[in-house]
Amino acid sequence: MIHFECDYLEGCHPAILQKLQETNLEQNLGYGVDPHCERAAAMIRIACDAPDADVHFLVGGTQTNATILSALLRPYQGVLCASTGHINVHETGAIEHGGHKVLPLPSTDGKLTAEQVRSALEAHFQDANHEHMVQPGAVYISFPTELGTIYTKAELEALSAVCRDWEVPLFIDGARLGYGLESSQSRLLLKDIARLSDVFYIGGTKQGALFGEAVVFRSRELARDFRYLIKMNGGMLAKGRLLGIQFEALMEGGLYFKLARQADRLAEQLSGAFRAAGIELLIDSGTNQVFPILSEAQAQKLGREFGFEYWTRTPDGRDAWRFCTSWATTREQVETLAAAIKDLEDTKN
Amino acid sequence: MIHFECDYLEGCHPAILQKLQETNLEQNLGYGVDPHCERAAAMIRIACDAPDADVHFLVGGTQTNATILSALLRPYQGVLCASTGHINVHETGAIEHGGHKVLPLPSTDGKLTAEQVRSALEAHFQDANHEHMVQPGAVYISFPTELGTIYTKAELEALSAVCRDWEVPLFIDGARLGYGLESSQSRLLLKDIARLSDVFYIGGTKQGALFGEAVVFRSRELARDFRYLIKMNGGMLAKGRLLGIQFEALMEGGLYFKLARQADRLAEQLSGAFRAAGIELLIDSGTNQVFPILSEAQAQKLGREFGFEYWTRTPDGRDAWRFCTSWATTREQVETLAAAIKDLEDTKN
Amino acid sequence: MIHFECDYLEGCHPAILQKLQETNLEQNLGYGVDPHCERAAAMIRIACDAPDADVHFLVGGTQTNATILSALLRPYQGVLCASTGHINVHETGAIEHGGHKVLPLPSTDGKLTAEQVRSALEAHFQDANHEHMVQPGAVYISFPTELGTIYTKAELEALSAVCRDWEVPLFIDGARLGYGLESSQSRLLLKDIARLSDVFYIGGTKQGALFGEAVVFRSRELARDFRYLIKMNGGMLAKGRLLGIQFEALMEGGLYFKLARQADRLAEQLSGAFRAAGIELLIDSGTNQVFPILSEAQAQKLGREFGFEYWTRTPDGRDAWRFCTSWATTREQVETLAAAIKDLEDTKN
Amino acid sequence: MIHFECDYLEGCHPAILQKLQETNLEQNLGYGVDPHCERAAAMIRIACDAPDADVHFLVGGTQTNATILSALLRPYQGVLCASTGHINVHETGAIEHGGHKVLPLPSTDGKLTAEQVRSALEAHFQDANHEHMVQPGAVYISFPTELGTIYTKAELEALSAVCRDWEVPLFIDGARLGYGLESSQSRLLLKDIARLSDVFYIGGTKQGALFGEAVVFRSRELARDFRYLIKMNGGMLAKGRLLGIQFEALMEGGLYFKLARQADRLAEQLSGAFRAAGIELLIDSGTNQVFPILSEAQAQKLGREFGFEYWTRTPDGRDAWRFCTSWATTREQVETLAAAIKDLEDTKN
Repeated sequence: MIHFECDYLEGCHPAILQKLQETNLEQNLGYGVDPHCERAAAMIRIACDAPDADVHFLVGGTQTNATILSALLRPYQGVLCASTGHINVHETGAIEHGGHKVLPLPSTDGKLTAEQVRSALEAHFQDANHEHMVQPGAVYISFPTELGTIYTKAELEALSAVCRDWEVPLFIDGARLGYGLESSQSRLLLKDIARLSDVFYIGGTKQGALFGEAVVFRSRELARDFRYLIKMNGGMLAKGRLLGIQFEALMEGGLYFKLARQADRLAEQLSGAFRAAGIELLIDSGTNQVFPILSEAQAQKLGREFGFEYWTRTPDGRDAWRFCTSWATTREQVETLAAAIKDLEDTKN
Repeated sequence: MIHFECDYLEGCHPAILQKLQETNLEQNLGYGVDPHCERAAAMIRIACDAPDADVHFLVGGTQTNATILSALLRPYQGVLCASTGHINVHETGAIEHGGHKVLPLPSTDGKLTAEQVRSALEAHFQDANHEHMVQPGAVYISFPTELGTIYTKAELEALSAVCRDWEVPLFIDGARLGYGLESSQSRLLLKDIARLSDVFYIGGTKQGALFGEAVVFRSRELARDFRYLIKMNGGMLAKGRLLGIQFEALMEGGLYFKLARQADRLAEQLSGAFRAAGIELLIDSGTNQVFPILSEAQAQKLGREFGFEYWTRTPDGRDAWRFCTSWATTREQVETLAAAIKDLEDTKN
Repeated sequence: MIHFECDYLEGCHPAILQKLQETNLEQNLGYGVDPHCERAAAMIRIACDAPDADVHFLVGGTQTNATILSALLRPYQGVLCASTGHINVHETGAIEHGGHKVLPLPSTDGKLTAEQVRSALEAHFQDANHEHMVQPGAVYISFPTELGTIYTKAELEALSAVCRDWEVPLFIDGARLGYGLESSQSRLLLKDIARLSDVFYIGGTKQGALFGEAVVFRSRELARDFRYLIKMNGGMLAKGRLLGIQFEALMEGGLYFKLARQADRLAEQLSGAFRAAGIELLIDSGTNQVFPILSEAQAQKLGREFGFEYWTRTPDGRDAWRFCTSWATTREQVETLAAAIKDLEDTKN
Repeated sequence: MIHFECDYLEGCHPAILQKLQETNLEQNLGYGVDPHCERAAAMIRIACDAPDADVHFLVGGTQTNATILSALLRPYQGVLCASTGHINVHETGAIEHGGHKVLPLPSTDGKLTAEQVRSALEAHFQDANHEHMVQPGAVYISFPTELGTIYTKAELEALSAVCRDWEVPLFIDGARLGYGLESSQSRLLLKDIARLSDVFYIGGTKQGALFGEAVVFRSRELARDFRYLIKMNGGMLAKGRLLGIQFEALMEGGLYFKLARQADRLAEQLSGAFRAAGIELLIDSGTNQVFPILSEAQAQKLGREFGFEYWTRTPDGRDAWRFCTSWATTREQVETLAAAIKDLEDTKN
């Protein structure tokens, strides 16, 4: 059985294990104020072309989202996001646990438009009863989105412009940031993300690290007292160096992006195999997630040898499934799967 | 410079790194429902002699404390603890962030007495205005305490009896549990901890793991829906296997206890060296933390070659410092320090 | 200018002022444990035919909703409601401030169906990732709804049955309860509300009181320690007797229902006037709220002499407005308005 | 039986009932944006000599404290207060429910000193681990305190200076403000309170109103979006005019202060009676609360005809009790009690 269920099935890239091994007996002070974290932060500032950025390391995504939003929002404020947004759907109410309403806007492709955000802000402040409603105090988007789609540069620039006009911070969840940036369909660079957002994070967990998310604030002012918030939200790792070490390894020589690129290309190979077999894809964004629409027979047949996840029912009543590649996926695994897909051609129903 | 500031200065015990290496390319489902977590949980149930216990793995202590208390308390309830308790002092209000008041009782040695708890409960319910006050809904103690002291078996049994009388759950923070159990002054066994508490955790971070705390609930009922709470509190690790793997390694052949024992014995050697040099210890509990009372000159002299932490001012105006040993401390390091202590004898002021 | 914007424009029914006057110099203990609260609670238990009910008095609706939900939900649970529900839209996130996600289900008429609730519960527990999502822990409906519609007895029985099947409490917001029960279209009685829900409240603020909501729990068990929660949520009135006195007055001789009936009949008269003038009503439920769809010219013309509130844009792009009657609305006021409506007939555009 | 248990035993001053009667059928928009609230706010700004102040009206004290602190504090911040502070002891954890730790400083007389506050702030920021601790973000004091004591002008000026130095807002709970200002021992004026604090409130509930607290922020900036917070915290009264009307009545011709003065003088008469009977007072501050230390026999004897509250055990093991006067206490009631006190002289044990 070869597994394609998600992109966090394995441990970590060997370069990270290697570095953990080499540094294991170093003595470092705790809680993220060690030389590894410092170096990793410096490498990230350079990679982002953002010398004034403030960089912090947390362990996981839900924690990171809750912590960032606790920094951005006042108590009566909520966060605008796509209805499909991770914070709205898959974090067991962590944002609400912190006291803030998630304000979902309808989305079928996982994206928010600048126009949606502008009109939500306008609608709020024009409503005579706005003090009886949660004030939108931040905008959350994911890049790539939870549905695997990606924003174009123009879309992101428009969103960013609206947010700056209204003085509402834009926060980009980059749990799979590399897979998005390295998509052959994307023209966005890391420095665009840094320039157009107020805060974002570079996801490690799903892209080669054991765990870890590197949060990048556009300025120290926005990040004021953020370390208190990390601690309060239970995200301050005692052996903080583990986060620094992993991001040092990932930033070194652009490993993070190489691994993402390689996973994206393998996913494209899978997309091609599905299309060649006459199988429609729910969306096709060039990231590491592939969403074929399979008949029951096809799904069953593939399911005998491969692991993959049920995704969603399409509006016309068919079933879409998710296959993920990752830094750990090999060419051989993909070729084996591609061959099995080819064999499906006579199994449409 | 040899560092004794704390017990989380290094990475992890080699057996853990080894196991991470060996399992790195295994494909496991995420979020703690993998075979490693299962096996580690089974090993812990056996070690605790608690076949009905429910075991969960979290990343760090503050997160673990907040998550457990969110399971035990209703919104208007608070948690009784010693005024020195970690949740009262050093977690940036994580418990209050979750909506609960910490109810500190005065303590000079870090411990709560059964009598204190009983009378706090009695006082609350006898007060005509009790509905205007936070109801004590759980009792939190640390073993060993934040001051390095340990409960005797009789003390713990008395505390446990009061809690059961009043139907208030007893929660033991075991961030340094092994160091406490392996103290030559302790007669308590892991299974006593499991038997006398309602929930406790076996701390990994400070005892040989990269990170990780194993939470043990006395029954599945008490732990109902605990995984929702882990996720909501941002403590659910995507690659949950990392926690399982580490606790497998620590439980195997009792490694966890061996490492603690070894650190405790090295600490005793340091205690002996201080005493031999005529230096008083603030307390002496046989755990891995040593608290000598040093003159300024002594502290300066040791500080040239060794790292250690300022602890507290004693009631009579002298300064106590903290030296920790850990699984990573070597006999050589301790002997070097012991020799330097011996040299202090003529540096009293 | 005669105002019909809402049903809380005036002070209170004279019987209440009278009773406040008469009791003003009585000396009563504070916080709701006085003889007036006791008597009012007893009268409500009788009116509800619910001898085991536990009755509490709070000041306002948002506070009452937040306090009740803090009693019903565990931290990782949310509350199912119609997307139009007051708690979802118009309480500045009070429920989320208390840590709980509001889980809106789509609704165009303000109601939830039993089927919607059943399938939401089913969908949650069948989802393999349910621990990553907020667990539905209560169902909130309003009677009448925020759109002025009312549940039929069959609808409410079906909802109640689903909730009991799934052991999820059903909570009915009765801010305008009387207006709903007294609608000529309703066959439900107060005792049906008490029998079919787990907790509900009898709204005073909008039905003749200065303020006040009487919360009725089906059993003392469900309401355990509810007074702590009232205090914690800032809803415990020092001079609690003010709530008791007002509900004594409202319950005496069924005044509460008489006032509601009278307002409903006046609203029906208005509905008739609009229909006679060829003006469509958005909905027509027989409660005290009337929602005519007016042209701009009509709205302007009426607006010169009468106060009313913009409600919503209809799907086909027209504008609906809200006119409310209340215990304080007089026959003369309604006749004056009805005459003005009659004059609209030639002002369609 | 004549009751002296507290100062909220009766309804309200007749002038308020009168005004409620007169305005009962006025039609006013809801939620505190009516002409009565506007006028009352203007009268308060004048009385405070604070033309830029922002005035808001809430229903009760706990709610007001929680709402103000949710405006002043960021999530990781707590509030310094005396250990005896109402928010620390008697609000069922309302502040913690809002996510904030109360940071009590030891106090035997109910007061905080400037020095205590300064050294708490200094200690926090000098501690190397301050990010692991709750940051003091506001200072809460009560005037008069929960023990009936009052700050001198010099004490309050010193506290205010420390708070401004450290840019930490000073919040004065004025639930009994008038009784404090009108004490014959006080040299402070309302405008001093306004000038020396950043936010305070004028308590109505205990001083002649049915309910209501008037919050005064030094500037609109500090109060930004405060109405959202009132609504979120469940404190926005639908018929907001009730608050405006009451404070209009209380401010008119200085009624608020007259009523307080009268109660204070009656309390002084009681204090004199106790002293004349050789009965020691726990403290003597000239406010409306009197705390005699009574023998069991004395307490029993008085208890046959008068209601009063057990207060506290003194350090030397005697019992202090509380007698309150209020706007509603009559000279006759006080004289009856004074006579009974006189009769105690032969009942010392």
